[in-house]
Amino acid sequence: MSIVLAMNLNSKHFLSTSQLSPDEIESIFDRARLFKEEFTKRGRFNHLVTGDGIDQKVLVAAFFEPSTRTRLSFQLAAYRIGIKATTFDNLAISSVSKGESLADTMRNIAAMGPDVLCVRYGASDELDEAISELECPVINAGSGAREHPSQALLDAFTILENRGSLDQQRVVIVGDVLHSRVANSNLTLLMQMGAEVAYCAPPEFAPKDGRWKSVQRFDDLEEALRWATVCMGLRIQKERHTSKGIGLSMAEYRERYRIGTSQLEHLQKDGLLLHPGPVIRGIEISSAVLRDPRNKILDQVSNGVFIRAALLTAMLGLEVNKQ
Amino acid sequence: MSIVLAMNLNSKHFLSTSQLSPDEIESIFDRARLFKEEFTKRGRFNHLVTGDGIDQKVLVAAFFEPSTRTRLSFQLAAYRIGIKATTFDNLAISSVSKGESLADTMRNIAAMGPDVLCVRYGASDELDEAISELECPVINAGSGAREHPSQALLDAFTILENRGSLDQQRVVIVGDVLHSRVANSNLTLLMQMGAEVAYCAPPEFAPKDGRWKSVQRFDDLEEALRWATVCMGLRIQKERHTSKGIGLSMAEYRERYRIGTSQLEHLQKDGLLLHPGPVIRGIEISSAVLRDPRNKILDQVSNGVFIRAALLTAMLGLEVNKQ
Amino acid sequence: MSIVLAMNLNSKHFLSTSQLSPDEIESIFDRARLFKEEFTKRGRFNHLVTGDGIDQKVLVAAFFEPSTRTRLSFQLAAYRIGIKATTFDNLAISSVSKGESLADTMRNIAAMGPDVLCVRYGASDELDEAISELECPVINAGSGAREHPSQALLDAFTILENRGSLDQQRVVIVGDVLHSRVANSNLTLLMQMGAEVAYCAPPEFAPKDGRWKSVQRFDDLEEALRWATVCMGLRIQKERHTSKGIGLSMAEYRERYRIGTSQLEHLQKDGLLLHPGPVIRGIEISSAVLRDPRNKILDQVSNGVFIRAALLTAMLGLEVNKQ
Repeated sequence: MSIVLAMNLNSKHFLSTSQLSPDEIESIFDRARLFKEEFTKRGRFNHLVTGDGIDQKVLVAAFFEPSTRTRLSFQLAAYRIGIKATTFDNLAISSVSKGESLADTMRNIAAMGPDVLCVRYGASDELDEAISELECPVINAGSGAREHPSQALLDAFTILENRGSLDQQRVVIVGDVLHSRVANSNLTLLMQMGAEVAYCAPPEFAPKDGRWKSVQRFDDLEEALRWATVCMGLRIQKERHTSKGIGLSMAEYRERYRIGTSQLEHLQKDGLLLHPGPVIRGIEISSAVLRDPRNKILDQVSNGVFIRAALLTAMLGLEVNKQ
Repeated sequence: MSIVLAMNLNSKHFLSTSQLSPDEIESIFDRARLFKEEFTKRGRFNHLVTGDGIDQKVLVAAFFEPSTRTRLSFQLAAYRIGIKATTFDNLAISSVSKGESLADTMRNIAAMGPDVLCVRYGASDELDEAISELECPVINAGSGAREHPSQALLDAFTILENRGSLDQQRVVIVGDVLHSRVANSNLTLLMQMGAEVAYCAPPEFAPKDGRWKSVQRFDDLEEALRWATVCMGLRIQKERHTSKGIGLSMAEYRERYRIGTSQLEHLQKDGLLLHPGPVIRGIEISSAVLRDPRNKILDQVSNGVFIRAALLTAMLGLEVNKQ
Repeated sequence: MSIVLAMNLNSKHFLSTSQLSPDEIESIFDRARLFKEEFTKRGRFNHLVTGDGIDQKVLVAAFFEPSTRTRLSFQLAAYRIGIKATTFDNLAISSVSKGESLADTMRNIAAMGPDVLCVRYGASDELDEAISELECPVINAGSGAREHPSQALLDAFTILENRGSLDQQRVVIVGDVLHSRVANSNLTLLMQMGAEVAYCAPPEFAPKDGRWKSVQRFDDLEEALRWATVCMGLRIQKERHTSKGIGLSMAEYRERYRIGTSQLEHLQKDGLLLHPGPVIRGIEISSAVLRDPRNKILDQVSNGVFIRAALLTAMLGLEVNKQ
């Protein structure tokens, strides 16, 4: 029996969670769930995926910014569905050192004919324009402070898996929301799926983008945790802070917004703690909290491979068959 | 029907375009053309390539100098013919930091038994000697300022594709000819195939090697473009200039040798503009010119994968069959 | 006919040569020998290895410290047995720059579900604990100054291959024994297999670990070479020396412990010279000695791929069949 993916992602770019309808999101989750079940049982799931010349297809993951986890996740997702992959990290450094524009580097890589291209890049109009004109399908693996759609998909998948539904979940995003592409992609996706979203951050970290206007802000972490069914920590994006800093010290931030054991007592017993990683222990989350059973951070990492595998099958127009 | 490759590259090194006879060059072009046609139609061409245990063969691309485009091109070429590949960038840094000679690093990599080894390296007698003694076939992916033979093959292939023949083409190479391995490899190959070659550069960039003695030098870019059917820009190889500089400023160079819209008006309507990349926009070529239909720079990049795929099949003694 | 591997390495970590019984060591050597014979004859040996879904299994080699040779060796070993592989170099730099602990980086990589994980890392209690809790099988590819078990296996295999047996060989380890993980792993393995081990080093390089207490130290290199059947040089591990240095100058060290032509005259005619690499010519070993027929350093490198291929088949529970 073949699971039909409602969305026609084949040969289109996937740049934002706002592109996805609820049906399309469900289709990706269906594939990811099937992959996970089969992987748990048999240690692989490539036998469920079919398509002409599948074993000769190639993912090129071109990361202009540094990445270990997302880059490896895409590479393993490619391997697990049975296609080839190669990845480049920190491409911006080599581009700039050779005097080539980032957009030209991207055009060159695309000209070599990858079957699917996965890019992480500092958002700019020039790059946006270059990407929109590329012939091969492109997956956004993180664009500046704007979007990280595959992360939002795996976050939502992990919530669904542990809470049974997304509808009517109350998700509070804690921390540096202003500089977080993860928060943006999650907001769109979670609201699309019927969840309520709020955030908890000092005013210095409040997002300025219009779509956040009607989103509730908690100033007090414990109050936020009492409200929430899911607490999603964020990484402090120091590399995106201006040289003047953010107007509050790390010690102040930590004092008021670090998720520690005593804070987590205010989260319901079957609530969830998520974080996109890397976690800076002691600042964002205390080490003790990482041993709490509600912590599903490593589950998110595991689910990332299944979600990205599902995405790749959709982008490449591959069939997925339930056996 | 099997296309027989006249050259017996199998188990020999490929280090210079001067090794190739016109028949051998044509054979490589035949394979590359077949690969490109099939890729355009079906998105792959590995089904045309056969050989014992082909899917277990491994290319190791050991780049002692930095490279993104050539390294990825060889890797994709390997994937596309159905073999495995792994690449190392910037190996010179790790060799030197560990106190190992570059030649020893190369001998160690070769001792691990790759089926074919592709190397980019700063030319030296010690490395030349080490390479000549390696048992596995070696492809030169750029040796200092001396040779870049696979680049010359893809350049000539792109000319042939767009101009119908190489014979009697007039190719003018513009820019830093003195420090260009691409220019050297092209000179030999193009003359071998019956093309006329000239160059256009300030005296400071005039090559000193003997084989350039009888090659016409244009001082004036517009005059050169009126003469040419093909204009090949070059990258300014700042990393090979001495600390004293080259005796002329970038502003002077740009004023007289940058290929801009008004200069390109002097090139015939069905002429070609090529460049091995990366392009430093504004210095070597203006952005406007990159939108000219005579610009085939991204076609060169695409063709690079087919040319290198053809080379790899030859080096590995694989059969290529027309279906 | 199937060669049965006595050891049940499947789904267990392989962190130290002290884990291995003589029978288990012999089993790994049997597989490696078979792989080498087949590779010499047919250029591949993957056809001897079988297992459910073998071509979809993935090795992730996560090197927190820099490595070219060991990393490539594991990758080629994976390719040669027919599984997939991806490697990360210098991971410690990216972990630290993002504020993530090395143990968390390792947990994240393991959470993505590699079939086997190969790690090189600076030894620490935190990492040891993290590794012990990982679900996927882990191979130690070098842990600080403590262990490098796959290197010791390939060293012993090379001795066995050239000397016919390990039993009653006299192996002298020359140089920076104090900081050498290779020396530690070799000591355990060689004694386990019946060889006599001694070392030759200035007192500053004498190991402090208890297991070296009863090991004979030679102060004089020529005397040591007269005693030995096998001379194993070591790399000077400058990166592990304290800022105060080691109490002797490189000139002094070189004067007394460099293995040169005149020193090697004291080694028996059919003795062996080994070194784990990279060799710092002129300090540890003279260039002239590298041309001596007793030098098997590049053989060690070649054998490394077969030994690691054997290890991987054992870790993954794959069958190896003699045809």
